[in-house]
Amino acid sequence: MSNAAYPDWGLEQIVSDLRASREELHRTRHPLGIRELPSRDGVINIVAGLRAALFPTHYGAPDLTDESVDYYVGHTLESTLRLLAEQIRRALRFLPENAGAGDEVLRKRAFEIAREFGHQLPGIRALLVSDIQAAFTGDPAAQHITEILLCYPGVWAMTHHRLAHALHRLGVPLLARFINEIAHSATGIDIHPGAQIGSSFFIDHGTGVVIGETAIIGERVRVYQAVTLGAKSFAADFDGTLVKGNARHPIVEDDVVIYAGATILGRVTIGRGSVIGGNVWLTHSVPPGSSVRQGKIREIASDSDAS
Amino acid sequence: MSNAAYPDWGLEQIVSDLRASREELHRTRHPLGIRELPSRDGVINIVAGLRAALFPTHYGAPDLTDESVDYYVGHTLESTLRLLAEQIRRALRFLPENAGAGDEVLRKRAFEIAREFGHQLPGIRALLVSDIQAAFTGDPAAQHITEILLCYPGVWAMTHHRLAHALHRLGVPLLARFINEIAHSATGIDIHPGAQIGSSFFIDHGTGVVIGETAIIGERVRVYQAVTLGAKSFAADFDGTLVKGNARHPIVEDDVVIYAGATILGRVTIGRGSVIGGNVWLTHSVPPGSSVRQGKIREIASDSDAS
Amino acid sequence: MSNAAYPDWGLEQIVSDLRASREELHRTRHPLGIRELPSRDGVINIVAGLRAALFPTHYGAPDLTDESVDYYVGHTLESTLRLLAEQIRRALRFLPENAGAGDEVLRKRAFEIAREFGHQLPGIRALLVSDIQAAFTGDPAAQHITEILLCYPGVWAMTHHRLAHALHRLGVPLLARFINEIAHSATGIDIHPGAQIGSSFFIDHGTGVVIGETAIIGERVRVYQAVTLGAKSFAADFDGTLVKGNARHPIVEDDVVIYAGATILGRVTIGRGSVIGGNVWLTHSVPPGSSVRQGKIREIASDSDAS
Amino acid sequence: MSNAAYPDWGLEQIVSDLRASREELHRTRHPLGIRELPSRDGVINIVAGLRAALFPTHYGAPDLTDESVDYYVGHTLESTLRLLAEQIRRALRFLPENAGAGDEVLRKRAFEIAREFGHQLPGIRALLVSDIQAAFTGDPAAQHITEILLCYPGVWAMTHHRLAHALHRLGVPLLARFINEIAHSATGIDIHPGAQIGSSFFIDHGTGVVIGETAIIGERVRVYQAVTLGAKSFAADFDGTLVKGNARHPIVEDDVVIYAGATILGRVTIGRGSVIGGNVWLTHSVPPGSSVRQGKIREIASDSDAS
Amino acid sequence: MSNAAYPDWGLEQIVSDLRASREELHRTRHPLGIRELPSRDGVINIVAGLRAALFPTHYGAPDLTDESVDYYVGHTLESTLRLLAEQIRRALRFLPENAGAGDEVLRKRAFEIAREFGHQLPGIRALLVSDIQAAFTGDPAAQHITEILLCYPGVWAMTHHRLAHALHRLGVPLLARFINEIAHSATGIDIHPGAQIGSSFFIDHGTGVVIGETAIIGERVRVYQAVTLGAKSFAADFDGTLVKGNARHPIVEDDVVIYAGATILGRVTIGRGSVIGGNVWLTHSVPPGSSVRQGKIREIASDSDAS
Amino acid sequence: MSNAAYPDWGLEQIVSDLRASREELHRTRHPLGIRELPSRDGVINIVAGLRAALFPTHYGAPDLTDESVDYYVGHTLESTLRLLAEQIRRALRFLPENAGAGDEVLRKRAFEIAREFGHQLPGIRALLVSDIQAAFTGDPAAQHITEILLCYPGVWAMTHHRLAHALHRLGVPLLARFINEIAHSATGIDIHPGAQIGSSFFIDHGTGVVIGETAIIGERVRVYQAVTLGAKSFAADFDGTLVKGNARHPIVEDDVVIYAGATILGRVTIGRGSVIGGNVWLTHSVPPGSSVRQGKIREIASDSDAS
Repeated sequence: MSNAAYPDWGLEQIVSDLRASREELHRTRHPLGIRELPSRDGVINIVAGLRAALFPTHYGAPDLTDESVDYYVGHTLESTLRLLAEQIRRALRFLPENAGAGDEVLRKRAFEIAREFGHQLPGIRALLVSDIQAAFTGDPAAQHITEILLCYPGVWAMTHHRLAHALHRLGVPLLARFINEIAHSATGIDIHPGAQIGSSFFIDHGTGVVIGETAIIGERVRVYQAVTLGAKSFAADFDGTLVKGNARHPIVEDDVVIYAGATILGRVTIGRGSVIGGNVWLTHSVPPGSSVRQGKIREIASDSDAS
Repeated sequence: MSNAAYPDWGLEQIVSDLRASREELHRTRHPLGIRELPSRDGVINIVAGLRAALFPTHYGAPDLTDESVDYYVGHTLESTLRLLAEQIRRALRFLPENAGAGDEVLRKRAFEIAREFGHQLPGIRALLVSDIQAAFTGDPAAQHITEILLCYPGVWAMTHHRLAHALHRLGVPLLARFINEIAHSATGIDIHPGAQIGSSFFIDHGTGVVIGETAIIGERVRVYQAVTLGAKSFAADFDGTLVKGNARHPIVEDDVVIYAGATILGRVTIGRGSVIGGNVWLTHSVPPGSSVRQGKIREIASDSDAS
Repeated sequence: MSNAAYPDWGLEQIVSDLRASREELHRTRHPLGIRELPSRDGVINIVAGLRAALFPTHYGAPDLTDESVDYYVGHTLESTLRLLAEQIRRALRFLPENAGAGDEVLRKRAFEIAREFGHQLPGIRALLVSDIQAAFTGDPAAQHITEILLCYPGVWAMTHHRLAHALHRLGVPLLARFINEIAHSATGIDIHPGAQIGSSFFIDHGTGVVIGETAIIGERVRVYQAVTLGAKSFAADFDGTLVKGNARHPIVEDDVVIYAGATILGRVTIGRGSVIGGNVWLTHSVPPGSSVRQGKIREIASDSDAS
Repeated sequence: MSNAAYPDWGLEQIVSDLRASREELHRTRHPLGIRELPSRDGVINIVAGLRAALFPTHYGAPDLTDESVDYYVGHTLESTLRLLAEQIRRALRFLPENAGAGDEVLRKRAFEIAREFGHQLPGIRALLVSDIQAAFTGDPAAQHITEILLCYPGVWAMTHHRLAHALHRLGVPLLARFINEIAHSATGIDIHPGAQIGSSFFIDHGTGVVIGETAIIGERVRVYQAVTLGAKSFAADFDGTLVKGNARHPIVEDDVVIYAGATILGRVTIGRGSVIGGNVWLTHSVPPGSSVRQGKIREIASDSDAS
Repeated sequence: MSNAAYPDWGLEQIVSDLRASREELHRTRHPLGIRELPSRDGVINIVAGLRAALFPTHYGAPDLTDESVDYYVGHTLESTLRLLAEQIRRALRFLPENAGAGDEVLRKRAFEIAREFGHQLPGIRALLVSDIQAAFTGDPAAQHITEILLCYPGVWAMTHHRLAHALHRLGVPLLARFINEIAHSATGIDIHPGAQIGSSFFIDHGTGVVIGETAIIGERVRVYQAVTLGAKSFAADFDGTLVKGNARHPIVEDDVVIYAGATILGRVTIGRGSVIGGNVWLTHSVPPGSSVRQGKIREIASDSDAS
Repeated sequence: MSNAAYPDWGLEQIVSDLRASREELHRTRHPLGIRELPSRDGVINIVAGLRAALFPTHYGAPDLTDESVDYYVGHTLESTLRLLAEQIRRALRFLPENAGAGDEVLRKRAFEIAREFGHQLPGIRALLVSDIQAAFTGDPAAQHITEILLCYPGVWAMTHHRLAHALHRLGVPLLARFINEIAHSATGIDIHPGAQIGSSFFIDHGTGVVIGETAIIGERVRVYQAVTLGAKSFAADFDGTLVKGNARHPIVEDDVVIYAGATILGRVTIGRGSVIGGNVWLTHSVPPGSSVRQGKIREIASDSDAS
């Protein structure tokens, strides 16, 4: 049936080469057989459902009334928690301790985690309300709460983080990372789900912010775009192996402000009430009340620069 | 009907706790009753419609011809302006001066704003054409106008900004912020709708650019990724209250180039034709024709760094 | 039929003004008549299809088995290559050398390019596997390969880049740019399709990374967020015209690590095994084994800073 | 910009001719200005919502539990009644008595009708349950209640009819007709919303059934495919004008069975417990307990027939 | 990779058997190579576009105004005619006379047919307006023109027929049949596109109506559900071959009424102004002014009947 | 939060009344707990997938080539059989013999049924090819095989029936009924999945055809619209209980033709080669070669008739 208008692609060769390529990797990757993957679209729907249950008039259905709002919240919660339990079940398969667990055991465990997560939602909501109020008092351009709920990438990122962090603590790190990356892609703000962040946290603009896995942040902290709370990792480069999970990111105490582009690295402590200036590069602790800023840049004539 | 396969979530408790949490916030937030919110998806559709009306062969329907293009533009405009008027109506509710206005009054006002906005579109198109031409002459990698219209995040951001700025000036700041954040999420470029930007403006790469609410930028200005035109805000930190809306961002005069990562803060003026080097930190004005660059970085051996 | 409820928009005036604005630009832009544009949505679907064919169990259909996977891959490949050939055909129209080519000639040429591209896929897959393994060994927070395939923006960006680079080399730069910008929007990582990147390349976090058109990167290189491999372009500013396509971006040799925020500009060479510290600004070559870091920042009291 | 590949359609002429054609009809049709039309898709969604609220485990969300079902029903009801009120508002405009009514008056009236309709739903559900049980006992091929709820066109038609009839009685005949025609298109069963039908009504197969506007049907009646309960309308043909709305369709008393293809015309009464045979043509009343069947068909050789 | 949870389907055997089955049929069916098929979904969209262009306020966009309606109609027409030309091009391939035609020839011919079709639309609209008015005067239950446009299956069927008939006459019988079957599926009314039907035609209820390919119907004719205007085809059964396309269906003159279930077969003529009663079986011509009705049905006791 | 603009619906009362109504029915319906229902949309997708696998160039993907068609068929089959196995699993729950079966048992049984069904597809395809050829030779208006595959409701109905019948025989009557009703809704042809139909069966026009559960039809049979092969069920009406599943519909031997509107009732046999005329009513067997037609209708003047 082959003809001039549709010449062959040589599919058989490509398919066979790709199979060979897969089989090489599979040998190291599937010792235990096929595992269903959590679904990115599934997780996106779950986050949308949770946001709608938390802030039904802003993120949920239009025109909810006092009479209808609890029906909406109850129904949204239930269907979202069911979807979540299913994704948790898939994610649990990827934990080494569950390698040999039966399907029914994981299903039950997933339900329990989702149930516990559901009961943490009112507490998460209270934290998010504190973040929203921090944005309102922290940004001179903010007009009202609605603008902040709808237009602030920092609030969007923290909504995802606080949900992801709860899942991380409940023992589902893979789902938590999914949620974190969904927010990272939308906002340019990359907060590892393991990071512990106190109430009334505000990120302005946000693009390029990176907060590492073991960072600990106090209450009423404010950071701007391109701030990094990272790890010092040079030493390991020469060693060749990376130790996973140890405390390697900064501790930021209450009421600290960190301006745009500042980089703070390693398990250092930024004392309560400190102000870290823009573009500062900091790899040691500073006491409470410190004010750190970059040295003065010389202004000189120049004939070359960056694009 | 409850059975082992579907144990209870304890929904009633969560729903009731969430209601308690909402009611606390509502007391301060809804003194005037329910207000319909502008819809993010609605605004996304409006921007798509406006882009299609402005550049029908690139962003509109495929295969438009000379005979059909005006029908397409007319129809697209009309349906888009209608949607816009509806979103404007909702947004107007959030302005303090409209707190007590009747629905019919706001509907009429929204129509008038949308109508005026429609008549500004040819002028906005002319500015965008100047931006596109600036990209073509400003980027050595650009191959042709079509590549710029389809692939340049800076052009995408400026299309949104010029539409958002017009709405901002017409008195609909909330919708303008929506449009700004849609572009921010897609491009990593964060331009406050209040910023005033002259013709032939070009942003290359763009991720991390921040341009503040009261910035004023002249003609033929070029900026690269991670440039900040921000505010100096330390003083207010100790005062505890933020003054909203005063002029606090830079003025950049015609023909200035600002390279990647440069940070310019406060109501300073960058004189016409100046060149600001990459990563420069600048908090005072410079005269026309200045060339500012960063001091030399020492290169030293090191055993620790950032990840 | 006009009435009070629906006053007129004055559409006729706007439509006519927009036509006038278009006609001005058209005179310089369409000397050869209408050209069909490649479709962004089309390209997004093509990339999704290619990813599914390359990693069917992670990006393709759920629950593929040993029996079914080759049917899936073969079908996905064929339909994707057909879509690709169509988009290539459109893109070829934009190359100056094809200005006068007949439609049938371009269609045949597009098929041949798509076919050749298809046969490069197993090689591209091998490179991507090396990138994934580099991420696993390079990030202390990585838990397993699946997390990397699903959650790492650097892997997402490199998947797009390796596909885009192959198309770029096969003579379809416009499609390649499309793919690059789709990844840039999703990840904040901006890699020009022309950049040559060796195996086992790892980008962590990634927001703000810029890698220019003529950059050459060796094997086992690792870069962090906000790293720029850019061009020095001052000189050309005074000349007024930009030379397109010449070698103007860095060469990075094997086993180099470049930490967050470092900026390397111009056709310089970073010698094998070098480590470039965070925020370093570098415009000259360094020999193999170099370790370059930023000078110490003074910490001083300050009363103003950036937001 | 016109060229050989895209010759003109002559659109201007067609558009202008269509406008002329419209304007002729408009003169007689829009004396009161534009009226929003009810939306067919809107009505389809409303019926789907009502069916889900009535039979949540069969037509609603999968996997509802005792804990969640009331949240689901409450939320579904509320959002469906809101949509219904909007469609009712539009439909009310088409009643002559509302010709001059203000928009706010109609909105309020529409809300009240939708509210009353909502409170009739439990009663409608009870009637539908009786219809379903009648199908189970009336069809020797029926296996269980679920098959009847999911696969019986007669049940589908009656669900639509009982909802449509309630709206008809509440004074919204246009919406009721919409619902009737949606069911007619899906099942081939055409029941005018005005028809009054008692409990435990069963239609088997159903294609071609027609039940007229003023028909009255008792309890436990059973009809088969292609049964017509119609009007005798000859007389009016010679008169030239049709009297609208008078009683002109049959009364069918309790426990009657009407077999396939039977046609009963005019305001006649079929007495309780009668059986009307297949293909019977009946234009006068029959007493209770009658058994009517077609005369014997002769079997003869033939050389012509119908296709 | 095969495991217990996913046993094999034996796909290879089924795929190979299906290929064998296809190849047998292909030998007789594809002597000329692959031909693109018209798309059912494509035709559905075309009919929707044409209906919107013909009756923009009822089937098109909501809220069109005097200012915007022509833009809408022009744009809808143009994009619909373009889609139509593409489907015509595919359909032309199936005509024996086009077996050897080049692609460019068919494309040009398809454009010309679509263009001519476009210019017939105002005339088609005038016929449809006459049909709608006939429905209003012919049905005592009709409330207003809007109900008829939105809820009458006969009007829906005639809209499809009049469009299909125009395509049939323009030499695209396959597309015409598609349109006819789309309406048949939605309404149960099966009108062959070849049938010639005069103005002011009204079909009430409609389910089961069949009108054959060579039927000719005058003006102001009215038919009810289950009426057949068919062919006598017995003779051919014994002959074994069917002559295609000859005149074999009835001619129905002006002002005839045909009641439900009547069957008229063969090339007979029903004279002007005749009335044909319900369930009548008629295989010969009747003069103008005839009134034909079924003989009286005996009413007898019976112990068996149809379900 | 209640206000004048949004008065209450009284939801709580309706929700509670509906719950009471459900609980009454539930007591008799759910003695065994919740059972997942087969999904109508799921079954629609399965039928679409099966049709695509059987006739890939007509119902599957456009532009399949000799090289790609087996990949397409294999992939489509596999994903469709997987979906089918899931729906079968749900349907098995509704068979009384599976009331107590474990989930794993049913899953395994469902897989085996789907697998067996898959291996019957080539045989089903052969029957469908015979039906298509029968349509071509049986309808004087048929132009080519493609028209028949795309536009003939009889072919559409038989495709569904032959698939449904295979499932019925494999012990999944509920899914089979679903498929039958999907075809019934689209075509007006109602064939019970239990009916046994030989090869080369042709239904023309089809609206109103009903073929009962225990009917047996030979090879090369042809039927027209509104033909009923039904049961005589009078006797049971007086008895009050219906015996389910016994042989009660006609046997139609090879080469029989049954014209439009004919009704054949009860377990009678229509002998090979017989011709049954239009509208004939037949309740007893006829020998091979019979020709049965309706008695002559008297033509009389009349002043009343049906609408």
